[in-house]
Amino acid sequence: MIAEIVTIGTEITTGSTLNTNTYYLSQKLFELGIETHYHTTVDDDEERLKRVIEIALDRADLIITTGGLGPTKDDMTKEVIAKALGLELELDEEMKKKLQDMFARTGRRMSKNNLKQALRPKGASFIENDNGTAPGIFINKDNKKIIMLPGPPYEMNNMFEKHVKNLIGDETVILSKSVNTVGIGESNLESRLNELKLATPNTTIATFAKGGTVEIKIISKGTDRVRVQEEIDNIVGRLREEFKDYIYGYDNINIEEVVVKMLIEKGKKIGLCESCTGGLVSSMITRVPGASMVLDRAIVSYSNDAKVEELGVNPSTLEKYGAVSEETAYEMAKGLLDRGKVDIVVSITGIAGPDGGSKEKPVGLVYLCVMTRDNHRVIKCNFNGNRQTIQTRTAIKALDEIRKVLIIN
Amino acid sequence: MIAEIVTIGTEITTGSTLNTNTYYLSQKLFELGIETHYHTTVDDDEERLKRVIEIALDRADLIITTGGLGPTKDDMTKEVIAKALGLELELDEEMKKKLQDMFARTGRRMSKNNLKQALRPKGASFIENDNGTAPGIFINKDNKKIIMLPGPPYEMNNMFEKHVKNLIGDETVILSKSVNTVGIGESNLESRLNELKLATPNTTIATFAKGGTVEIKIISKGTDRVRVQEEIDNIVGRLREEFKDYIYGYDNINIEEVVVKMLIEKGKKIGLCESCTGGLVSSMITRVPGASMVLDRAIVSYSNDAKVEELGVNPSTLEKYGAVSEETAYEMAKGLLDRGKVDIVVSITGIAGPDGGSKEKPVGLVYLCVMTRDNHRVIKCNFNGNRQTIQTRTAIKALDEIRKVLIIN
Repeated sequence: MIAEIVTIGTEITTGSTLNTNTYYLSQKLFELGIETHYHTTVDDDEERLKRVIEIALDRADLIITTGGLGPTKDDMTKEVIAKALGLELELDEEMKKKLQDMFARTGRRMSKNNLKQALRPKGASFIENDNGTAPGIFINKDNKKIIMLPGPPYEMNNMFEKHVKNLIGDETVILSKSVNTVGIGESNLESRLNELKLATPNTTIATFAKGGTVEIKIISKGTDRVRVQEEIDNIVGRLREEFKDYIYGYDNINIEEVVVKMLIEKGKKIGLCESCTGGLVSSMITRVPGASMVLDRAIVSYSNDAKVEELGVNPSTLEKYGAVSEETAYEMAKGLLDRGKVDIVVSITGIAGPDGGSKEKPVGLVYLCVMTRDNHRVIKCNFNGNRQTIQTRTAIKALDEIRKVLIIN
Repeated sequence: MIAEIVTIGTEITTGSTLNTNTYYLSQKLFELGIETHYHTTVDDDEERLKRVIEIALDRADLIITTGGLGPTKDDMTKEVIAKALGLELELDEEMKKKLQDMFARTGRRMSKNNLKQALRPKGASFIENDNGTAPGIFINKDNKKIIMLPGPPYEMNNMFEKHVKNLIGDETVILSKSVNTVGIGESNLESRLNELKLATPNTTIATFAKGGTVEIKIISKGTDRVRVQEEIDNIVGRLREEFKDYIYGYDNINIEEVVVKMLIEKGKKIGLCESCTGGLVSSMITRVPGASMVLDRAIVSYSNDAKVEELGVNPSTLEKYGAVSEETAYEMAKGLLDRGKVDIVVSITGIAGPDGGSKEKPVGLVYLCVMTRDNHRVIKCNFNGNRQTIQTRTAIKALDEIRKVLIIN
């Protein structure tokens, strides 16, 4: 089955909105084993839309459109596609009643235009929309499947997951699993994966770099669900053997969520002393619901004064070794741990750039100190990139070090 | 002039890469007054690409392609377009020499494949690429302009700005200006703009919401540069009268950059006490180069203990009024200001959710206290949205309050 994704809206062709719907749908179709050959976007113009649909009907078996299902006169996707297919529009009494009820329930006035949303091409069915007023449309005609979805991503994504998957799948079972890694570069990971030769005719393995971490995605298909699941489990097992230390989680989980979850499970509290990351690690951790159970405090000791006054770093240490040094990182961590309120402390000091680097201490040089009651370790890193990349990579490194400490503590 | 943007690459149709090139180019063409009617993406397949180009030649006057100009066998944009136009490919000796020199200079080995990059369709010219090995191609034939650019955004954007603009512009002068606002909602701003009736036949005014701030973009065109600039200046003047308090800057500047710049100019130092934002404000400020000149320290006092121990909040205040209260916000700010190291302190305490809300203190309730040596103000906010939205809006509000204090101090 060959798919084309058609996006309708002048807000996209004028560059006022970034087209993330196509990105989402392409990923989902890829995971279902459906090949997407084309994406087309067209502005809100009846003639041009009609022509785009005719071209799509000519070259694809599955057409998914987003946008143009609302109540205004700019919204004409349903009307134009019905015309292109030679189908009449009928008023669906059930949908009319549903819309009326919904408007009554939410106390909003239903305009005449909203009735447009109860129209459907003859023989088509509606696709329910839990998050908005515009239902989707499904047409199955002459071996072509046409699916129309509304433009707002939170409406569209939900409808795809809940209803569309079932409308376009066949007997083929497609399962996928993501293995999330940290601390190993994408190209290194990729070449090691190639050497392992884990892919089979039914299974693809791909890597995706995501801001300092790398996702390994395994997608497998077949007719027997149990066999497909087994194949995935086998590969995940092999990956676990090979990359054990680098794997922090599976599927849709990021490293800060893993760290917060582990801290909660182990009943440990954490404290942070950040200099060059300026609160980024703390901000990432506190994005996760429940962070208040595990983060006690963070000190962004950006100036030297703050390092001395807030964390008790010895002024002579700063003078002798500099703010970016193993010794300062150690004293920062010790200062906070000695307050006696947390079990683990991570301190960070480095040069994020663009200025402030020297030959001995170049931009990208970072020291982290991870400290518990019994132990500590200072890690020296040299990161490449601009200010923001260096800050992000440092933050991910810090989260990974917390994770490693939690594995053994 | 009608434009079509064609993106070439299987990484886009499989959803492995988000297509930001089209977004960028659509904006740029819109600003140049060129109407983009279509975006098309096609995977790396010779036959399908050829057909896509034929369709584009049929319906557009300007075709801009991105991707498929590299040295591998998957890269075939130039070859296919030359074929579609009936043009032969010639080896350009000058470009060959240039490539050889570049490889020699950077000490890399030039493979035979790299020679592909010195080929150009007969009559076409190269577009220089400062950031990569693949040059772009410009063809002007039968009243159609075809521009081929490489896929990597940092190569493509630079080439567009430096060379492509001049290739596609006509005598029309198009100028634009962005007015960035904070503290006023997009729909409110839009209806006030509509009432002002500032737009003219040659001038469009549009608003774009950007994570808590709203950009007003003015685009004006004409044949006389001085007149066009005057028209924009007049509108900016009117906007300044109407929205004075909400405007924080112009063109490509964000609010944290404005705040850092103002602090540097006024020679003031800042300190932050963050609870519900967990270091987000500090992290936004320290993203800006030069932040070390103005941020002294930030205390993320996430637990009640931290509020007491790090900021000297009175335990009885926490008991009587709670951590999320006017009184606590005040004492947090006072605690840090009394250290005597900074001129301005902002403290933040609130409920980011999803848990922790009550009827009296719902999720989204936030208190900010802005304090200088002479003055202080506590602001109560009720934000809507999920945890991350509440944190972001609070951070933007805090930055805006610092900005306001700096205007009068």
